[in-house]
Amino acid sequence: MSAPKKVVLAYSGGLDTSIILKWLQTEYGCEVVTFTADLGQGEELEPARKKAEMLGIKPENIHIEDIREEFVSDFVFPMFRANAVYEGLYLLGTSIARPLISKRLIEIAAETGADAVAHGATGKGNDQVRFELAAYALNPDIKVIAPWREWDLTSRTKLLAFAEENQIPIAKDKRGEAPFSVDANLLHTSSEGKVLEDPAEMAPDYVYQRTVHPEDAPDQAEYIEIGFEKGDPVSINGEAMSPATLLTALNDYGGRHGIGRLDLVEGRFVGMKSRGIYETPGGTILLEAHRGIESITMDRGAMHLKDQLMPQYAELIYNGFWFSPEREMLQAAIDHSQEHVTGSVRIRLYKGMASCVGRKSDLSLYSEEHVTFEDDAGAYDQKDAAGFIKLNALRLRLLAMRDRRGR
Amino acid sequence: MSAPKKVVLAYSGGLDTSIILKWLQTEYGCEVVTFTADLGQGEELEPARKKAEMLGIKPENIHIEDIREEFVSDFVFPMFRANAVYEGLYLLGTSIARPLISKRLIEIAAETGADAVAHGATGKGNDQVRFELAAYALNPDIKVIAPWREWDLTSRTKLLAFAEENQIPIAKDKRGEAPFSVDANLLHTSSEGKVLEDPAEMAPDYVYQRTVHPEDAPDQAEYIEIGFEKGDPVSINGEAMSPATLLTALNDYGGRHGIGRLDLVEGRFVGMKSRGIYETPGGTILLEAHRGIESITMDRGAMHLKDQLMPQYAELIYNGFWFSPEREMLQAAIDHSQEHVTGSVRIRLYKGMASCVGRKSDLSLYSEEHVTFEDDAGAYDQKDAAGFIKLNALRLRLLAMRDRRGR
Amino acid sequence: MSAPKKVVLAYSGGLDTSIILKWLQTEYGCEVVTFTADLGQGEELEPARKKAEMLGIKPENIHIEDIREEFVSDFVFPMFRANAVYEGLYLLGTSIARPLISKRLIEIAAETGADAVAHGATGKGNDQVRFELAAYALNPDIKVIAPWREWDLTSRTKLLAFAEENQIPIAKDKRGEAPFSVDANLLHTSSEGKVLEDPAEMAPDYVYQRTVHPEDAPDQAEYIEIGFEKGDPVSINGEAMSPATLLTALNDYGGRHGIGRLDLVEGRFVGMKSRGIYETPGGTILLEAHRGIESITMDRGAMHLKDQLMPQYAELIYNGFWFSPEREMLQAAIDHSQEHVTGSVRIRLYKGMASCVGRKSDLSLYSEEHVTFEDDAGAYDQKDAAGFIKLNALRLRLLAMRDRRGR
Amino acid sequence: MSAPKKVVLAYSGGLDTSIILKWLQTEYGCEVVTFTADLGQGEELEPARKKAEMLGIKPENIHIEDIREEFVSDFVFPMFRANAVYEGLYLLGTSIARPLISKRLIEIAAETGADAVAHGATGKGNDQVRFELAAYALNPDIKVIAPWREWDLTSRTKLLAFAEENQIPIAKDKRGEAPFSVDANLLHTSSEGKVLEDPAEMAPDYVYQRTVHPEDAPDQAEYIEIGFEKGDPVSINGEAMSPATLLTALNDYGGRHGIGRLDLVEGRFVGMKSRGIYETPGGTILLEAHRGIESITMDRGAMHLKDQLMPQYAELIYNGFWFSPEREMLQAAIDHSQEHVTGSVRIRLYKGMASCVGRKSDLSLYSEEHVTFEDDAGAYDQKDAAGFIKLNALRLRLLAMRDRRGR
Repeated sequence: MSAPKKVVLAYSGGLDTSIILKWLQTEYGCEVVTFTADLGQGEELEPARKKAEMLGIKPENIHIEDIREEFVSDFVFPMFRANAVYEGLYLLGTSIARPLISKRLIEIAAETGADAVAHGATGKGNDQVRFELAAYALNPDIKVIAPWREWDLTSRTKLLAFAEENQIPIAKDKRGEAPFSVDANLLHTSSEGKVLEDPAEMAPDYVYQRTVHPEDAPDQAEYIEIGFEKGDPVSINGEAMSPATLLTALNDYGGRHGIGRLDLVEGRFVGMKSRGIYETPGGTILLEAHRGIESITMDRGAMHLKDQLMPQYAELIYNGFWFSPEREMLQAAIDHSQEHVTGSVRIRLYKGMASCVGRKSDLSLYSEEHVTFEDDAGAYDQKDAAGFIKLNALRLRLLAMRDRRGR
Repeated sequence: MSAPKKVVLAYSGGLDTSIILKWLQTEYGCEVVTFTADLGQGEELEPARKKAEMLGIKPENIHIEDIREEFVSDFVFPMFRANAVYEGLYLLGTSIARPLISKRLIEIAAETGADAVAHGATGKGNDQVRFELAAYALNPDIKVIAPWREWDLTSRTKLLAFAEENQIPIAKDKRGEAPFSVDANLLHTSSEGKVLEDPAEMAPDYVYQRTVHPEDAPDQAEYIEIGFEKGDPVSINGEAMSPATLLTALNDYGGRHGIGRLDLVEGRFVGMKSRGIYETPGGTILLEAHRGIESITMDRGAMHLKDQLMPQYAELIYNGFWFSPEREMLQAAIDHSQEHVTGSVRIRLYKGMASCVGRKSDLSLYSEEHVTFEDDAGAYDQKDAAGFIKLNALRLRLLAMRDRRGR
Repeated sequence: MSAPKKVVLAYSGGLDTSIILKWLQTEYGCEVVTFTADLGQGEELEPARKKAEMLGIKPENIHIEDIREEFVSDFVFPMFRANAVYEGLYLLGTSIARPLISKRLIEIAAETGADAVAHGATGKGNDQVRFELAAYALNPDIKVIAPWREWDLTSRTKLLAFAEENQIPIAKDKRGEAPFSVDANLLHTSSEGKVLEDPAEMAPDYVYQRTVHPEDAPDQAEYIEIGFEKGDPVSINGEAMSPATLLTALNDYGGRHGIGRLDLVEGRFVGMKSRGIYETPGGTILLEAHRGIESITMDRGAMHLKDQLMPQYAELIYNGFWFSPEREMLQAAIDHSQEHVTGSVRIRLYKGMASCVGRKSDLSLYSEEHVTFEDDAGAYDQKDAAGFIKLNALRLRLLAMRDRRGR
Repeated sequence: MSAPKKVVLAYSGGLDTSIILKWLQTEYGCEVVTFTADLGQGEELEPARKKAEMLGIKPENIHIEDIREEFVSDFVFPMFRANAVYEGLYLLGTSIARPLISKRLIEIAAETGADAVAHGATGKGNDQVRFELAAYALNPDIKVIAPWREWDLTSRTKLLAFAEENQIPIAKDKRGEAPFSVDANLLHTSSEGKVLEDPAEMAPDYVYQRTVHPEDAPDQAEYIEIGFEKGDPVSINGEAMSPATLLTALNDYGGRHGIGRLDLVEGRFVGMKSRGIYETPGGTILLEAHRGIESITMDRGAMHLKDQLMPQYAELIYNGFWFSPEREMLQAAIDHSQEHVTGSVRIRLYKGMASCVGRKSDLSLYSEEHVTFEDDAGAYDQKDAAGFIKLNALRLRLLAMRDRRGR
């Protein structure tokens, strides 16, 4: 790889990416463009601007954007159409944000004539893979710089020394080491590492940042109604909302009721297992609600196929293959299945749980006429079941006849 | 089908199967053998013996058995190895009991020289399919009688009239119609029909029979430790238990904490959608615990394959294909994956939720050495990630190059 | 089912469907509308008109149509995009024609105000299922009449007697029984039954109707070039052709070279196995060619997903679920994958085989630059492979470390 | 990686691996152990022993073994039970040999106290991955040396210079560059590179080494009968044979009739596409025969599941994951399905094609009684089909009713 001349850095304004910014300038002598995005992580962005300026970035090279609506409408909601869950539990909150960040990095590189992008993910995790696969898929010639895989700042001491040498301000609370590492966006907050590294030990309560402890949640259940159109949520209690507004509101509900906490061990794409504490308050409610509305509006054949495809779809997102033909193929199938997923569901929120307790739709496939225990006025002829079973059984009977012969 | 001479009836001792018993005698003039099983449904069996005798069944034709251990060890546990869930939610509590009942019906038919079996499932449901596919798979020549599909006792009034004509005693509370229909065994209780037929309406509280309302559950969380060997639970809090004993104990824990309530609409094999209220207290805890122990002891490749196969496995059980070569093929794959699923997990029980909060195993694949944020002493070379990403990206880059050419 | 008043019959003009026509008139006393389609089966249609008239059908109730182009463009080609093969061998030539016939039956029923449709498939085969599932999917209230399942004309003698009683002319060669049963359309000819019923016996040569015996094919190979656009063939040897014209031309090539003969035993949806002799000359060439053009234009990830989905897609078509949401979902995924499947392939035709011997495309993903054994000018860094392998191996190494500990 | 002290080299005796041998000695100064295997590649092994001795390898460090029987019985046959085909065409002839070679390398390393293994695969291909994943899976601490990824002998000239400097004899015909690269074993011969690098160009005839041109094959078809037990072939024309003997015999038949030639472009695991010419004469016959015996002895449900799993199984083998839990899980499922795959098939060999023309088995599931067009004596009740179709259609009708309402 020839030396990069201009690099777009995914910049949070924090200590680590500030060190990276400086390191890119000193190590590669290249011009740095910063990209700071509001993905709903709950931090002010303007301090990042000031810090970038202070580190010598030209105003026109500082890019700060609120991309919450794009994040939710183009990434989160399509993923929830699939009821995507990784390894049975994880709602993919970190995974789904990475491709969007890369997309903007590549777009800004094109706009500013940069030939490289850089990110602050380490060499042990999945995020490096997600950032880079997306970047390469969108620009096959882009250079990618991953300082954590390259530099020799391999301890906290060395990092702080580098910061001091380079006049990077260090917040008081960053002097010591954080007891765990955090990633956050509108969909979720993840915590991992250090105090969480023994999977046998219960996670300490201070790790949770976004949800109350279920024991501290209200003693009274709360009920909300979520409206859906073509598989996506569009309203809460009858009030229409934009995608990011709706997810924010669901997060409030969920956080208040202690919903969406998850303690798990997952298999990383790079090969080892890792333990994470995830909080996905709104997403957890949304998954339950989406399953609920699908249950009356989606055909059994379609649903079973979708359930069967889901693990691979989730794995693709987890592994960083959002921008791949096979993810798009699966999305085409999934989106086709959502055409009639329209209606509303009622959800009970209580002490850590979101439970669907009712669902209705003008496009419902549920037919009380057919299923009723009462007189169905001929809608269904029970005698049909005899032939249905007889022919489904035929191959099993032929097998049994063979077994008998074989004895 | 020529007329049956001797029929083994799945007999509960209740009004409906007593009417069937009588109807078989009068309609077919055949000898009736009764089979009453304790599957953990929580009812006394001896009254069924008395009632059968009263209806003229010879003592040697009355079969009453406790098959709880076989049910749990040979049906429930193998299914939980798969983390089987139908349509994302249903733990298959009714589905998994049917093949065992059919197996015993067929075995008793062989022992008693009967040429037919009979069951009390209606022509609209899945259970008729499950009973009959299992029966045909085990004896290709067996005759199956499903009175609900044949007779003209199509209303409550006609049924009661038939009972009275035939001196079948009618318990007072059976005079009126039940407000919903119930099935129960050691794994779960299901309720459906009548007051539950509008899926938009919240299920009334009196439907739940086996779990307290989460709001009435203890305000204090309780923690238990479940031990596993080769994928099956073998102990609670260090105390070894037989399969049925263990599931009974989990049911107690779950029932007390309001765990395992489920309100859903599902797609039946016979074609329509139906609404059910399920209570699976112990099974819900077991699923969470099994996922937990797998998370540290099962390889990612194995787990992802298993997750991908699960929906078809669950569908086979739901549809009644327990005794089919393809279910057995999947079981062979699943069982192979459980060889090292040994260890223990800690579960928190609180207000309707079972949450894994810790897991440990001598056979753990979790390697703190590899995953640590601290110095890993060379266990993992972060530079390897660069090549890993580069080659995973190559085909995406070739696609992007083509897209660029194509423009 | 209340008695039908007006029924649209899939009418070939042959003896069997003429008997059905008469039987519908006499048995149900209903008005009959005939539908005779040219699907490329190679028979004149006008005789069917005359025969229908002779049997008393009003001219406005006689529908005769050439639907070859619709058949190939909307059914055959979409299926070939999937490389659909049932049970490893069968190209689904009969299966794919049924839904189109049902579609036209239902459309003509709507146009003519008929409340029923009828077909001449027997109660043992797959075709009844395919006809009827398609019909119900397109009109949930349609009545379907399947005379072979209803009447008592259960022997050849009775059929001929009925024909004679009803003045239905019987061609001389129809007096005796046919030695096997045939179905044909533009895609294929199938033969089954009677002389073919012992699967151990080689099919007699006179069964084959559409292809020469490979031993009688030219001793010289012939080469053709097939052009593709977005997954569908559009030209042969540079000459653009309509879908049906192109398939007809491929049939000529294939028939002349003895290509596309198949002798197999397949598992029917209704439960038993059956033996068939299939001739699919053009389709066999097309499958080989389509695989060839995909091999250079389709990404590996997309192709492997498609290969994995194919067996279920083929099963859906075989079982008659063309008009189902899950077939449409799979089609959406498959069609997405064909966006760039454009280019041309060279095929050698010789003594029963069609072999791809060359393929080229402006949208090729094949990169000689990357794959070359020669100097690749840095396109690919072989050192990347070390990290790629190391991280792919990590989970396998962790497994091996555990195994070692476990000993 | 610390420096290796003793390395087991996969040694063919040819020029390239002789250079590697010398390079290991000079570059790493380590003791070299050679492993030369007879996998049926058709070369004498004793010259390899002499050459190794000449290059200074101690006699006790020279390992020469005939592993053909193990290769066929433990690798080839298990794979053929799955009907494994990669990307629709490739029979995995090279892929399946690699894990066995690695297994022996690791075993010899254990026996001789070596801490490393080395192979002669390049950094662009799949074989390096297959060798190394297998090695790491069997010994997590093994060091793997892949000289082609490390050294600077990056041109033919440099290689020959190194050989001359090190007194490695160079056969006359190795002076110039080979026009393509070859790999061979008992299952197949593959050729790729150089003259084959343009996938639009037909492969020159001299590339094929193991099969006659179909045009030169006998003008008379030949028929053979292959006997199977539990999915594996055990006899030809009634003569029982060991696995390797049988495959050798099938290779003779196939080679003589020009069977098993394949010209394709495949997607490599490392990311690019490559063009290969494969000859798999015996394997091609075996696949056709295995499909044939399965067609009468394997249940439809089992077969369809197996077909659906096959692409992932083939991908795992292609990518080098033979020794992985997920391949073993799939194998467990596949092997379960082969329990009754016993019987014999008749195959016609003619001008490049192997065609199954008959199959029989004592364990056949084919029931002439059920399928017959003649009177079936009540084996099958055609009226059952009506109910079968009605209930299969119910969900499609409910969909159609909704569509109508939606309009």
